[in-house]
Amino acid sequence: MRIVDKIKDAQRENRTIFSFEYFPPKTDEGVENLFERMDRMVMHQPAFCDITWGAGGSTSDLTLEIVNKMQNMICVESMMHLTCTNMPVSKLDFALGNVKANGVQNILALRGDPPHGQDKFVQVEDGFSCALDLVKHIRKKYGGYFGITVAGYPEAHPDVISGDAATQEAYEKDLAYLKEKVDAGGDFIITQLFYDTDLFLRFVNDCREIGITCPIVPGIMPINNYKGFLRMTGFCKTKIPADITAALEPIKDNDEAVRSFGVHLGTEMCKKILASGINAVHLYTLNMEKSAIAILQNLGLIDISQVRRSLPWRPPTNVRRTREDVRPIFWANRPKSYISRTTAWDQYPSGRWGDSRSPAYGALTDYQFLRRRSRNKKIQEEWVVPLSSVEDIAEKFANYCAGKLKSFPWSELEGLQLETKKINSELVKINKDGFLTINSQPAVNGEKSDSPAVGWGGPGGYVYQKAYVEFFCSPEKLEKLIRKAEEFPSLTYIAVNSVGETKSNVGPGDVNAVTWGVFPAKEVIQPTVVDPISFMSWKDEAFQGWEDEWASLYKAKDDPAKKILLEIKESYYLVSLVDNDYIGGDLFAFFSGI
Amino acid sequence: MRIVDKIKDAQRENRTIFSFEYFPPKTDEGVENLFERMDRMVMHQPAFCDITWGAGGSTSDLTLEIVNKMQNMICVESMMHLTCTNMPVSKLDFALGNVKANGVQNILALRGDPPHGQDKFVQVEDGFSCALDLVKHIRKKYGGYFGITVAGYPEAHPDVISGDAATQEAYEKDLAYLKEKVDAGGDFIITQLFYDTDLFLRFVNDCREIGITCPIVPGIMPINNYKGFLRMTGFCKTKIPADITAALEPIKDNDEAVRSFGVHLGTEMCKKILASGINAVHLYTLNMEKSAIAILQNLGLIDISQVRRSLPWRPPTNVRRTREDVRPIFWANRPKSYISRTTAWDQYPSGRWGDSRSPAYGALTDYQFLRRRSRNKKIQEEWVVPLSSVEDIAEKFANYCAGKLKSFPWSELEGLQLETKKINSELVKINKDGFLTINSQPAVNGEKSDSPAVGWGGPGGYVYQKAYVEFFCSPEKLEKLIRKAEEFPSLTYIAVNSVGETKSNVGPGDVNAVTWGVFPAKEVIQPTVVDPISFMSWKDEAFQGWEDEWASLYKAKDDPAKKILLEIKESYYLVSLVDNDYIGGDLFAFFSGI
Repeated sequence: MRIVDKIKDAQRENRTIFSFEYFPPKTDEGVENLFERMDRMVMHQPAFCDITWGAGGSTSDLTLEIVNKMQNMICVESMMHLTCTNMPVSKLDFALGNVKANGVQNILALRGDPPHGQDKFVQVEDGFSCALDLVKHIRKKYGGYFGITVAGYPEAHPDVISGDAATQEAYEKDLAYLKEKVDAGGDFIITQLFYDTDLFLRFVNDCREIGITCPIVPGIMPINNYKGFLRMTGFCKTKIPADITAALEPIKDNDEAVRSFGVHLGTEMCKKILASGINAVHLYTLNMEKSAIAILQNLGLIDISQVRRSLPWRPPTNVRRTREDVRPIFWANRPKSYISRTTAWDQYPSGRWGDSRSPAYGALTDYQFLRRRSRNKKIQEEWVVPLSSVEDIAEKFANYCAGKLKSFPWSELEGLQLETKKINSELVKINKDGFLTINSQPAVNGEKSDSPAVGWGGPGGYVYQKAYVEFFCSPEKLEKLIRKAEEFPSLTYIAVNSVGETKSNVGPGDVNAVTWGVFPAKEVIQPTVVDPISFMSWKDEAFQGWEDEWASLYKAKDDPAKKILLEIKESYYLVSLVDNDYIGGDLFAFFSGI
Repeated sequence: MRIVDKIKDAQRENRTIFSFEYFPPKTDEGVENLFERMDRMVMHQPAFCDITWGAGGSTSDLTLEIVNKMQNMICVESMMHLTCTNMPVSKLDFALGNVKANGVQNILALRGDPPHGQDKFVQVEDGFSCALDLVKHIRKKYGGYFGITVAGYPEAHPDVISGDAATQEAYEKDLAYLKEKVDAGGDFIITQLFYDTDLFLRFVNDCREIGITCPIVPGIMPINNYKGFLRMTGFCKTKIPADITAALEPIKDNDEAVRSFGVHLGTEMCKKILASGINAVHLYTLNMEKSAIAILQNLGLIDISQVRRSLPWRPPTNVRRTREDVRPIFWANRPKSYISRTTAWDQYPSGRWGDSRSPAYGALTDYQFLRRRSRNKKIQEEWVVPLSSVEDIAEKFANYCAGKLKSFPWSELEGLQLETKKINSELVKINKDGFLTINSQPAVNGEKSDSPAVGWGGPGGYVYQKAYVEFFCSPEKLEKLIRKAEEFPSLTYIAVNSVGETKSNVGPGDVNAVTWGVFPAKEVIQPTVVDPISFMSWKDEAFQGWEDEWASLYKAKDDPAKKILLEIKESYYLVSLVDNDYIGGDLFAFFSGI
């Protein structure tokens, strides 16, 4: 979606939106950390996030990689900065084509800083000399596909600032140039950072005077530390109001106090700006989380206790996936794996899984997303311990369900889902009994759609779930379970072992909606299903977990733990079990006595 | 669906099925009565119904018309008899092409009786001399589209019977010919009528002996009156066991007693046949209802108190409509009108209305189905009475809701739906207050899917409804209603007057599922929706009701009633109102005090 449409929707609905800007980290570990941080921050539902283009194009490959993953794996509407520095048209088009192919729809078109080591911007051969030409090029070549953002300078572009401030003439010339960028196809404006809110408001006013009517979004950079603040404002020739200097001077060596003042200042600036009628703030996070989140909390724009899920899983933002609103439950704890394995689909199911599901899941090896060092480290600590029996393994599973372990070989996420806590004592019990659960949800019978633990879709509706549990168990346990299931007609199951031997009491095409919601003036939304065909694709990934995610982390080739884990992989069944009676059923009562 | 597949499904699921045969009545009124009777009988869910081809092709046009309406308007899987009598291939193909175009998929292929006034069958030029050639022709020309049924003669074909019975040689020759018909493409066999059950069982056995493996369905003709029985059995040279003759002789002049014996005999014959392992009975109804229904009740094959609805509305059987499982609520009381206005659709929504709804409803004038004399007669009696005020009209509506009137200008059905009775006292009240209701349903919050009043879809599930009411009201009442609705956020409405002025609090594309069901191992089924686009097509039909279905029935051009009715048509709004809170809402509380 083009960001300007999100801003306009919010204007119509009287909502305030916010966004986060990041830059490409210098190390692999930094990139991994950035994605984890972004993943957390995106839970607060920014309207979009953006990633800068390295000065002189130095990080361009990394920027492409990051923006594509932001859009498709983090599932946030993403904007890529693009500059003319060192970029002939062919390179620009490579970058634009690449992100377009990945469903990214938003570009911040900039001239860019001078190439590394130079003082002045230099036009490269076959390149552009200014953002205006870049805007024109994008519009001409890509029509309306891209949302184009342009930069506005409340104090004029640093290049035209000499001494304390730009001359009025230089400022006006800069404004006129901004209008040209908008007229050439810029959808809306994000401003350079500033600390004098009045200057910003005057700038907005001046824009309106000369006929710039598009949204103008203030760029807010929370002060995180004193030296960084000086460096950044020096580089950008940003005016610092005297009271800010005065407030910082006595605390400049106390990082904690500076940050705290930064949050206070950012909050006050935003309050004043929002009060003026502007409905969006853009936060230059410098890849840091706390100050940005604190400012938004102060403004009442995010509320950690409130549910803001539009679906039980985070909906995709890739322009080609936006109609997707049904998924199998199997990948609930591995959403990135799911996205990766379905990227080749040319259509996604909407409304019903049965109608338009794509048939083939990508191969397991396609699953390469996050560099997984930190996750593996946690699993190494928590799971790679001496194991001498199946009971030891059941104990680990039980401990995870009890919340005693944070990592889990079958999950990309950290810790348990909130809703799982409703049933974790039951889960602990069945795990100890040898039903090693890797996925579950409690039954929900018409809870309000804004309930914190299980709600989604916004207020005014009711949500439902069928109780679900997915586990590994031995063939002997499975046999007992199947016999007992005959007395529980509301139970449906699919069981399969690693070589594909299957036992099931549902038809091969039966698709079971296990999560659904009823909302005013809408058709029933059923975002999560259990279906045998997807299950058969999933099972390879699930069985592989024993080896790739766990056994392989033991160093010694002949570690007895490794042997037990691989034996389980070879001999156990993976079982998907639904209690279809979400009103009167009791899934865990079924397990007692098996 | 080909009938043989229904029989085989039933065999697999250990179910017994039944079917009804009719013949084309001689008068228009007879045809109208037949459809009403068939409509009632089809509620008991026969596997199929069939209609005979007139002797000598005399009723062929009417047979085509009837079978097409059976399939598409009565919505029962229908089979057409087709004979070779007086039928050159071109005529046969016209008939086959015509029913194929109408989605009929089953043909009973017969040689047919001799042409009228002749003793012996005569092959017509360019026609066929036997059923075998007709079977071959249908298979060759239409591939697997048609299910083909062939006739079996437990006592051999009457043509080869001389004296008391066919010779063994003639009987065996007849059997061999039957095998040829099956081998040439006949899917299954329906037998000629018989009254000696042992003969039938021997026939089945003999068929199996010579390698006929397809289903064999006994044709049972309940004895309805003595003379008819003698005529039919004489014509068909049917053997009558001595005990039947003995039982009929003393009661032959007492029609009531004969019918009662006929039901008893039919029941006993069927019991014996079903006990032998056959799972289908075909009833020659002779267009009569009671004996056939009584036999099926005796056999426990139908249970009037039990719900057998697979969806809230009767699902279509036309092969091109079988995936249709969502409809707007507006035509709930006019299902035939709905089918008529959507026959041109090339796809029907499945699972969701929003995804694949066809855009255009056929024009109102397309709506021509039943000859409507009898219905108009009832409306004439009940509704065409002196009216001098809007209050008189409100009184009529209230009386209908109270069950005091059987007919209703806006309904093709007779009387109120069972579920409406839950809310009829509330409906009476709001009608008296000037909200003239033409459609409604109560809220249902997770009742069992086999509940008699509101259940559908078979056992094991839960069904839901949002409370719905659709009515005409004056612009003044509408204004009050809209003001009051602001305090009831769960209410959504669409209102429109005859010239198309609209007031609504939902978006133009908002589709509201108002009936849905949750079943084991299935996606949520949502068969009834309220959507603004369909509503706009429906409103013309609804407003036209005031004139075409009511005012026009007043003879006198200047009848004051006519004037009032037309004034309402011109000035009132039609309002569709949903209470989206099916758990805690109270739609009728909303009306109190408006």
